Amino acid sequence: MIDHAEFMHQLPDEYLIDVLPIAKRIASAGEFSQYNVLQNNGKLANQAVPHVHFHVIPKPNQETGLGIRWRAMETTKEDIEVKYKHIMQKL
Amino acid sequence: MIDHAEFMHQLPDEYLIDVLPIAKRIASAGEFSQYNVLQNNGKLANQAVPHVHFHVIPKPNQETGLGIRWRAMETTKEDIEVKYKHIMQKL
Repeated sequence: MIDHAEFMHQLPDEYLIDVLPIAKRIASAGEFSQYNVLQNNGKLANQAVPHVHFHVIPKPNQETGLGIRWRAMETTKEDIEVKYKHIMQKL
Repeated sequence: MIDHAEFMHQLPDEYLIDVLPIAKRIASAGEFSQYNVLQNNGKLANQAVPHVHFHVIPKPNQETGLGIRWRAMETTKEDIEVKYKHIMQKL
C-alpha cells in the first residue's frame, strides 16, 4: 500500500479505478452540462500542489472555467512512427 | 449495455474504471515526465468530437503541450455554501 503519490502514473490501479466514478457523480450532482476533467502532472503542466488530484471544472460560458491553448509540437511523419513504435513496444 | 456516450457522466462505472489505468500506462510507456490528462464535455469546453475520450498530453516545455487559462468565477462565500449544500445533498 502506498499513501502518497505526486504523479498519476505512480498510483496503483486499485486507487485509479475509483477516481472517474467519483468525478462523474460530482458533475451530475453539480448539474454541470458542460465541463472539463483535468489532472496535471508537474509544475510545467500547471500542477500547483505535489499530490495527485483531479479537477472537475464547470464550463457554463466562454468567459469562465477552463481556457485551453493547445499548440501541437512540430514533428514529421517519421518522428511520429518512431515514437509510436517505442510506445507500443512498452505498452 | 450502452455502446455510445457523448459525455463522461453518461458512462457506466464499469467503463470508467478502465480509463485511468490505461492513461497511466500511456504516460509511462511514452516516458512523459510532465503531462496533463484532459477530458472535455461539450463544445464550450473544447470537445471537438461528440464521443467521450481522454487526452494524455506530454508537457516537455513551456511552449508545447497544453496551455491553461483558468479564470475563477465571481462568487461569494454565501453562494459557495448554497452550491456546496446542493451538491452534497445529491451525492
